[in-house]
Formats: sequence, C-alpha cells, structure tokens
Amino acid sequence: MSGTIFFNAIHAPVGAHSSLTLGCKGRLGGLGRELGNPARKNLFIGLENPKGYFEALPFWEGGTDESLRFDHMKEKTEEIQLPLRPFADSAISREFSVGRDIWTAGDFRMEILSPVLPAPDPAKAGYEAQKFAYCPAVLVEITVDNTKCDHARRAFFGYETDGLDGVFQSQYPIGVVNGRATALFTDDPNAIAGCGFSGQDILLQKCIPNLRFGLGTCGMLMFTAKPGEKAVFHMVAAFFREGLVTTGLECSYWYARFFKGLNDVGAYALANFELYRNAILDNAAKFDSPNLNDAQRFQIAHSIASYYNSTQLLDLAGKPLWIVHEGEYRMMNTFDLVVDQLFFEMKMNPWTVRSELELFVDRYSYVDQVHAPGDANTLYPGGLSFNHDVGCRNAFAAPGRSAYECDDKPGCFSHMTHEQLVNWILSAATYTHQTGDNPWGDVPERCFDSMLNRDAADPADRNGVMDLDSSRTVSSSEITTYDSLDASLGQARANAYLVLKSFASYLALVDLIPANRRAEAMKQAHLAADSLVAAFKKNGFIPAILDGSCDSHIIPAIEGLIFPWILGKWDLMKEFLGLLDALKGHFTSIMESGECLYADGGWKLSSSADNSWLSKIYLNQFIARKLLGVNAAYTGVSADEAHRAWLLKKENLEYAWSDQMTSGVAKGSKYYPRGVTSILWTLE
Amino acid sequence: MSGTIFFNAIHAPVGAHSSLTLGCKGRLGGLGRELGNPARKNLFIGLENPKGYFEALPFWEGGTDESLRFDHMKEKTEEIQLPLRPFADSAISREFSVGRDIWTAGDFRMEILSPVLPAPDPAKAGYEAQKFAYCPAVLVEITVDNTKCDHARRAFFGYETDGLDGVFQSQYPIGVVNGRATALFTDDPNAIAGCGFSGQDILLQKCIPNLRFGLGTCGMLMFTAKPGEKAVFHMVAAFFREGLVTTGLECSYWYARFFKGLNDVGAYALANFELYRNAILDNAAKFDSPNLNDAQRFQIAHSIASYYNSTQLLDLAGKPLWIVHEGEYRMMNTFDLVVDQLFFEMKMNPWTVRSELELFVDRYSYVDQVHAPGDANTLYPGGLSFNHDVGCRNAFAAPGRSAYECDDKPGCFSHMTHEQLVNWILSAATYTHQTGDNPWGDVPERCFDSMLNRDAADPADRNGVMDLDSSRTVSSSEITTYDSLDASLGQARANAYLVLKSFASYLALVDLIPANRRAEAMKQAHLAADSLVAAFKKNGFIPAILDGSCDSHIIPAIEGLIFPWILGKWDLMKEFLGLLDALKGHFTSIMESGECLYADGGWKLSSSADNSWLSKIYLNQFIARKLLGVNAAYTGVSADEAHRAWLLKKENLEYAWSDQMTSGVAKGSKYYPRGVTSILWTLE
Repeated sequence: MSGTIFFNAIHAPVGAHSSLTLGCKGRLGGLGRELGNPARKNLFIGLENPKGYFEALPFWEGGTDESLRFDHMKEKTEEIQLPLRPFADSAISREFSVGRDIWTAGDFRMEILSPVLPAPDPAKAGYEAQKFAYCPAVLVEITVDNTKCDHARRAFFGYETDGLDGVFQSQYPIGVVNGRATALFTDDPNAIAGCGFSGQDILLQKCIPNLRFGLGTCGMLMFTAKPGEKAVFHMVAAFFREGLVTTGLECSYWYARFFKGLNDVGAYALANFELYRNAILDNAAKFDSPNLNDAQRFQIAHSIASYYNSTQLLDLAGKPLWIVHEGEYRMMNTFDLVVDQLFFEMKMNPWTVRSELELFVDRYSYVDQVHAPGDANTLYPGGLSFNHDVGCRNAFAAPGRSAYECDDKPGCFSHMTHEQLVNWILSAATYTHQTGDNPWGDVPERCFDSMLNRDAADPADRNGVMDLDSSRTVSSSEITTYDSLDASLGQARANAYLVLKSFASYLALVDLIPANRRAEAMKQAHLAADSLVAAFKKNGFIPAILDGSCDSHIIPAIEGLIFPWILGKWDLMKEFLGLLDALKGHFTSIMESGECLYADGGWKLSSSADNSWLSKIYLNQFIARKLLGVNAAYTGVSADEAHRAWLLKKENLEYAWSDQMTSGVAKGSKYYPRGVTSILWTLE
Repeated sequence: MSGTIFFNAIHAPVGAHSSLTLGCKGRLGGLGRELGNPARKNLFIGLENPKGYFEALPFWEGGTDESLRFDHMKEKTEEIQLPLRPFADSAISREFSVGRDIWTAGDFRMEILSPVLPAPDPAKAGYEAQKFAYCPAVLVEITVDNTKCDHARRAFFGYETDGLDGVFQSQYPIGVVNGRATALFTDDPNAIAGCGFSGQDILLQKCIPNLRFGLGTCGMLMFTAKPGEKAVFHMVAAFFREGLVTTGLECSYWYARFFKGLNDVGAYALANFELYRNAILDNAAKFDSPNLNDAQRFQIAHSIASYYNSTQLLDLAGKPLWIVHEGEYRMMNTFDLVVDQLFFEMKMNPWTVRSELELFVDRYSYVDQVHAPGDANTLYPGGLSFNHDVGCRNAFAAPGRSAYECDDKPGCFSHMTHEQLVNWILSAATYTHQTGDNPWGDVPERCFDSMLNRDAADPADRNGVMDLDSSRTVSSSEITTYDSLDASLGQARANAYLVLKSFASYLALVDLIPANRRAEAMKQAHLAADSLVAAFKKNGFIPAILDGSCDSHIIPAIEGLIFPWILGKWDLMKEFLGLLDALKGHFTSIMESGECLYADGGWKLSSSADNSWLSKIYLNQFIARKLLGVNAAYTGVSADEAHRAWLLKKENLEYAWSDQMTSGVAKGSKYYPRGVTSILWTLE
C-alpha cells in the first residue's frame, strides 16, 4: 500500500465501546474500554529470533524500570543486552482491509479479525445470534513458520494495562486479565500466560511460578512453535464492564445479558473462532466494489473500523438503546453524526436508526418558540425539535436537553434546533422508506408544522428558508453542525447547506404526513428550491448564507441532495431541474476555480476556512459524481489519494480515522466514527 | 502549626478505598477512588469576594481552555480579568487534627469531617450501625460570615473529575455526579449544582440551564449566603463502585449491601450529618493524650488519615474480607504492614485482624521445605508459613501465592517465609490475648513446628535463630520487610531484627500451643535471647546479621520487644534481663554515637543506609522510651519535630503521609497506611 503502514487502526466489537488499537510506532495503542483515544500503552507482539533474542512489532517504547519504584535503592549492576528488539521496518508488511489487519514480519504472521458485523435487532434476533454478534471480543490468529528452525521458538502477544486494577493470570481459559475490564485469552493448551512489569520481564522470566507476579502492569500470552512446524495459535482480546454503567438513564451493557464477565467472553469467542472468521469475511465483501480505487478501499476500511469503537448497545431495564459515541468527544448519538452514519446503519442494521430516533422523540425533543434575529422579546409559535445529542461519556443528559447545547450562547455550543429537526425528518424518512416500518405517529406532521413556523411567522412570508431562531437561543442564534468550520458559516438562518436539507425534508415529509397536507409540503420544497436558484442566479454561485452576509463558497451546499436519491424520490427532481443546474453550477464553479481544493488535490469544504471534514468530503464526492454527474480530475482518484495521505500524515497516525483536518492535519474530531459516509462509494 | 499548612491530607471513609485529598497547592488533590496517589485534579473551593470576583483556596492550576478541543478555530477575543483568584497565603489558616481539617480564609470557613471511625464487626453489628460506619462519604461543612456584607455572596466547592465518565447534575439530592464513581451532594435546598469545563466556567455561567452542560469534566456546588447572615452549608463527597470489583476472588464492596449508588450514599450521609460529627469527634478523643507534643499530634492525625484511604471492606459472597491496600503500591494486606497496623486495628476493630489472619490461613499459606545456604539440593522438612500479601490492586493472588514473592529471585521480590510466619504468630497471639477469642485450632502449633524446622534440621543445632531458607527461594534466600532498607540487611537468616521477633513469637506461642510443648517454646525463646546477648557481648552492639556478615547498626534490632509487652508478658521478661540489657546497650550505643541520627535529629534506621521509615521509627521510639526506659535528647521532641519537618518537605507534600525517607525525602512507600504505629504514643 501507499504511505506508511504504521498507522493506528481500531479493532472493535459491536456495541461494546471498546477496542484493540494498534499500528502506530511507540506507546500509542492498546486495549481500551470506553475511550475517545487509543489507550496509549505498550503492546509486545512478536517472535523469538533463531538467535535467541525477541523481535517485536514496534508498538512499544522502552519506558522505565517500574521495579525501581518498589526498590529504589536497587543498583543496576547489569544491563541485559536488548533482549527485545523491533523487527526491522523493511521486514514488516501489513494488509489492512475491512475486518482484517494482517501483519507479517519474517516467520511471524498476525491476523486480526475485527468483528465488523451487523448488530442484530434484539426484538427479532434469537439469543444465540445476539450472543454471537454482541460478544465483546476481537480475534487474533498468530502463525509462526518454524519449518526452517531446528529448535522451538516462542511467539508472544502482550499488553500494558491501564495500571488501575491488577493483572491476574487466568486458567480457564488461559489468559491474562486486567481487573474486570480487559483481557487476553487463548485456547492453545500449551500457551503460557504471564504477568510482569514489562514485556521484557515476562519474556525473560525463566521461573514459571513468577509469571503470576502481581505488581506489574503488563500481561502476555506466549505460544511455543515446535522445531520444524508451522504453528497456528488463536487468541482473543476481551472487554467488559458490568453492572450499571450510565447516569441520567441507568443502563447496563446489552452484552451483559449473555456473558458474566471476561472469562466467559473469552471462552465463547475462542470456541466460535472459525464462525467469526467466516462471518467477518462474508460481511467484509459487502464493502467492496470493482469501481473502488485503493485509496478509497483504505478509507472505507479505516472509517468503518473507527466507527465500531464508538458503538455502544445499552440495556435500559430490558429495552435496547443504540448509542454511538462521538469519537474523541464521546457525546452520545450526536444527531449531526447520526444522520451521516445513517447510510451505514441502514445497510447494516436499520433497527439502530429507529432506536436512535425513538430516543430523540421520547426524551430528547422539545417544543420551543421562535424569534426574529435581534428581537428576542417578540416570540412566535415554534414547534417540535430535537436535541443535538443525548448525553456525553455515559452520562445521559436531562430530558429535552443535550450535553452540548447552551442557552443564550453565541457561536459554538449554541442550539441546533432547525438542523436537528431536518436531521430527524430525513433519518426517519430514510428508515421508513427502506424498511416499510412507520412507527412515527404524528411526529412527522408536528415536525412539518415546526418547519413552517421556523420559515416565517406569517405564512405569506415563507420562502422555504429558515428565518427564525429558537427561543432557547435567547439573544443569540442557532448554529449548524458546521459550527466549527467557519465562524461566519455557523449561522443556521438562511444557511445554504441547511436550505437544501430543508428542501429535502419537505420532499421527505410528503410520504409521512397526512395526504391533505402534501401539497403544502411540495410548495415549501419549491420555495426552498427557488430560494437557492435565485441566490445562484444572483451570484453565479450559492453563497454560504443566502442573504449574502457570508459569501464563502462551500461544498456542502450540495450535501442535502443525497436525500431525494436515498429516499427513492429522484424522479421528483424532474420538477427541480433548475435546482439541479444551480447545484451543479455552484459546485463546478467553486471547484474549478480551485478555491475549494488544497494543493494536493484534497477537498476544502469552504473557500474561507482551512478546516475540512473527511466524512463530509466523502458524502459530497458521492453526490458530485453520482447525482450531479461531475467527472473531473477533482472528483477522481487524486482527491482520494490526497485524503488517504492526510490520514497517513505523521500527526494523524495515532488517531486512526479522524474527521476535521486543517491542511490535512487532524485538529479536532479525532478517533471518530462519522467516516462511514465512505460506504456510499460502493454504490457508484 | 509549624511548617507549611499546604500539605495534602487524606479524608477517607472506612473500607471504601477512596478519598477526598487536599491541601497541596496546585492540581494535586481531588476525589480519588481506588488510587495509590492523590487524584491530581483541580479543586475549586472558596467564596465570592465583596468586590465581585471569586477567591479560592489554592488547590488548582489555571490549566488550558478545554473548549478549544471542540472549537479549535475559536479565537480568544477577550480575556476575562482573573475571575478566580487564590486567597492570599497570609489570609489562610488551617487546623488539622484526627477526624478534622478546618480551613479559614477571610469570611470563608470549611470544616472537613473525616470519618475516622471504627469498622463494626459484620458478624455482630446491626444493619443500621454498619450502614452508618460503612457509608462511603466524607462530610464537609462550609460557613460564610456575610454579616458585614450588604449583598449576597456565593461560596463554592467544585472538583475536576477523572475525565472518563461524564459529569451529571443530580436533583435528589442536589449534586454533581461523575459517572458512577464520585459525587458531591448537598442538602441546602437553595444550592445550585453546575457542570462545566472548569471552575471558572461554572462560576461565571449566568444562564442556569447551561449549568447542565455535559462536555466538561468539572462539577461544582454553589451556595448563597444572604446579605448580613452567617450561613452554614452541609455537603458530602461520595464514592461508589458497584458490582464485582476484584479478580481471583470475586468480591463486591461491603457498602453495596446498604447503598444502591452515589445518590443513596449522599442522601444518607447528609441526613446523618450531626450524628457523624459527634461520632467523629468522640472517636478522635481516643487519639489524644496530655503527653503528646504538637509534632506527635500532627503525625498521629496524618498517619491515621492516610491509613483510611487504603482500607477496603469486601463482600465475598456474604463473607466480609478486610483489606488494607499498601499505599502507592496497592498490594493487599501486605503482612509486614498488617503486623504494624495491628496496634491500631486492635484498638479500633479487632475483628479486622481476625479477618486478615483467617484469609492468610485459608488461602495465603503454604507448606514448604527448607535448605541451608548455598545447598538448594539438600532439602529438609519445612512447615507452614504465610504469603507476603494476598494480591495487588484488587487482584487476589492465586492460592498460596502472593503478588510480590518470586521464586529463585535474589533480593527484592524474594520470599519472606520466616518473617511472615512470625508475623502471623505475633498477630494471632495479640488478637487472642486482647479479645479472648481463639479461633486458630492447630495453626499455632503448626507454626511452632515450622519455626523449629527453620532454626536447624537437627534439634541439637538449634539456637533460636532462623538458619534455613524456604525451598521456594531455590538458589536464592529469604528476605525481610527491610528488603529495600539496605541490601546487606535484606537477608532473613540470622537477621537481628528477625531474631528478636522470633524470640517474641516463642513467648507468644506459649499461650497458643498445647501445654506439653510450652517448655519447648520457652527453651527456644531462651536460645534466641542467648544468641542476641552473645552477639552483643562479642561486638558491643548487635550486628544487623548476627553471624557478622553485615555489621550495620540498626535500630530495628529492638523492634520485636513490643510484643512481650503488648501480649501482657512483660513479667516474663524478668527471665530475660540479659536480653533487655543487650537491647538497651545496643540501642543507646548506636544512638549516642550519632550513627543512627540525621543532622536534624531525625532517626536513621540503619547506620549504613540513607533510607529511614517513619512507621518503624514511631514504633521504635515507643519501645525505646516506654520499654527500655531511654529518655535522652534523641528520644525527645527534637526527633518528632524533625520527622514532622520531613513530612512537610516540599517534595513530600503531595503524598500525605509517606514512609520511606531518604534524607527526609519520600522515595518510596508514599501515600501509605503503615504510619498508624504512631498511636502507640498515646499509651506512654
């Protein structure tokens, strides 16, 4: 592959908010539970060299001698001559794809099987199917080619724990367990599990009982390949958190229905190793397409893997709640992510979309009033909308409140009332269109009324464009998901990106509201389209804020176009050819001018901000090519390669897949789930 | 008081292995659960100044603006002019005593009530008594003297959490909750609980709904004192860990029998605030004596507080297990600490001693063979002994194994077979002597046989001195608790400190073994005494290793003398006047020569090592004064003041009470429980 192979990739079970992350050089990977970043611990993975020392993948740093803390008078009378050395970079190769991460170095091969599997619907799937899918483990196969060696050699996989609870040597299955949180297990009856201050200590320990040493923070599995054999060993990394784990709403993990703890998880995953392998490889095939280039394949695999770390299936007194944490920020079900992850979840497990939308309806919705800019004291009826998120870091927010949104707050952390309203409509419509399931009652019609009220207080003044802010913003105003893209673009009112999403929402509502109101929805769609077309005609592009208060050129002006297509309403676009022309004209003009391109061919979401988001780029790439029919150099492989190169920049390697890039360097939204918009490429 | 007042003190409930630690300047205190160090987080504690800004005790550092991580494009257009400032040092005073830590600064007063209470015996105490004692909370009373101010002012107590689970605003009781681990609650109905990125953010937040902001890591309680009033507010810091918490043996916390979670703990502690105050103050009186000087009082209060953080009462399927973690190392029930903490636990809650000793008998004992030095292949019968500890950091070790001890390991981490054998005998004898309860069956006699076998294989060769090492040491040899004091002193064989403890053990066994063997025990006691006396006569002092292989002068040669006295056998010492003379001669000679004193008058445990342990100093001070009748300058107040000055050295302030001091600086055994040997001073 192109670029360094030493990037962190995430290997995560479904719904366990946990991962085995590795790939970066140094102390930057490890087993992490409920983290928004890699565990940043040492991993000791490798093979005994025929010459007697140990060679490992470069996932650790020397660190200090922990034993000195216990015996500070100790004099270091001898230095062991580097018993653990990194494999030469040139000896290492890596194959990274959906569900698999294969490392080879000399006679050592490690294949990580990442359970990129659908999340079965608890309302429909049987006990065994759920147990299989929700088992919080990642599988690893280690192969040692000892055919050319006349003595036994040890392969090893060890990890440095978080240092809180102690490390314990487990017997059934053989393994090393860190408190009740993480573990490594194997079904190789000859494997030896050891604990110690460091990987080196464990590897050099000649006295078997001492492998139970309990003061260290490292645990390791060691496997012996006999002389002349090619040996294969299976192991798993397991994760667990028991009991109630959240506040606000008190939930446990759904997996705790099936497993009592780490050992239970380990035994089950090992017993079903081949079933997992088959399921993972079968599923991975869903994400391939002959039309993909290598840079796209890499980004699909990387973004999907990163998404899984953030997933969390909770058990609220018997009711499953599907939560996706927001990468490094760990906000829960952030709605502007939900609506982008929609495409992936609808492909994999549509019930999770319903779970997310229902939680918004049941607990994270509110009815507000609205006001005109600068006139917070004159209030008009508003309507139903939804919160930005449902909480943060396992703390569910209070009902009707998100963790993020603040009242009377300018800029970042203001409300996103209108945006989350269209996000709910578009997500619900997509769910219902693809599944035929319509559990929404009168919510869509209430959403419709709410949209109308936000357009203008007087129906005669409506133009399909949001013009009034939620009363929750008080003297401030609503923002959008692009809150941090560009200050001038943060405004929701008359925001071009939001107008097109509003247009799509009106189209989407046609199928969800009573028949007698459909014409009204179509009329609003036309008004919104007309507003965009008029702005385009006036400017030759669509300004970021239609009223001209911000004339940045932004790619996301076309973003909302995904929904008419996803919703199977592309035929209706015949009524909106002017809009399609305006969007294509806008897009081609801002791209051809180069304002929205970096020098390397990567996409720049806004002409006025050095802050570009890969998830949104992926989505807009699809729209440009597939829906607007733009096939230019800038929609081709060079952009994909530039974006891959961003992810492989030195500064970004630690964070697996990250979203917000400043000149290609991740400054925010690291270790992030939203990149699964890339799976749209498989539909081209 | 003398020295800085800005030292960390620990405030910890009974058996919850948790603490509110504060006192150091900077980001070095906080609420910690299961930590071997302070949480090292910010605390925001103070009062609004009449001029409108906020003044706080200096327990925080400015830190960075966390909101930048969410909005990295944010430009800092205005700097608020230091809304939160530290009180001037000169305005702050502190009164620190057993169970209380009172801070005053201007019109602000905070009284922390630290639940230094006995741990009731679960087999005897009723439900309510246990609930009261084991409630995992620390109480705080805040008083604001607003009598001279004509407007309302806010007092506040906030904390930075560990950043893992989110911070949540609780309503019943009013509070801020960090995940399911820590919380602050109040019963003041007008208090406001807020969450945010920092203490400053919360204090400056003018919009009440925004105090639910869920992205930050800080939580705070705010109290309003009305104009002209002197207002008193009650609050508690609560701790919780639910479900199973240990590995090896699967235990939950005993407190989980009485409380469902943090809110439950908070409500109960607040409802019983005055009962706690009374109980704490009553109990504190037990630790005073008119003979104590201020430096001693300080060390008693400091060491007791530090002990409580390390206590953990576990529930093993209905059976209570009393665990004391080993300070920064977090080894569990380290036997060389148990035997020193014995004096405190026998005063407070003797059943905990039985719990500890029974766990050693039931699971952490073993039967070995023994061998002579340098001849690991010729094995003789050994006998029963006990492990160094029962595990580390919530991981119980395998049966018959400690977390610490390694086989065939020279120096640190070797076995302490003989020492733990005498520790068990001496602890069991003390328990039985003081309670009349003798649950030990034939264990004492098996211990006696084991001691005999370790003296010499041939009974004719016995001299009361351990001469054979456990077969577990293989080619190495046994060490003692002074493993890290001085390499040459690490050896257990013929170790003067251990010989006197062996002598005491033989005396102790007289009451515990069958009558027909008592003479044999007395004979062994005489042999041990004779060996010490002979060594003294030969050298004019007792060499650290009797055979002369280490002739360091060590204070702990007298340490074992505590037991004949504690066991009520001081009368028997009439038979051993030669020993008393030798011990007194040894002690006075090594002290008067100045070899075992630092320049500041502090005690140096060994003439050959700059590594002195306060817990052992306290114990030996008592022995020297009370039992050997030495009253010299070096046994007086100057030593106590030197030791207090050590604890108040800049380098040591963070770690509350620490044990191992190198020239008065804590290099190991920080944040340590063993200092409760200081309570012996109350018996002088």
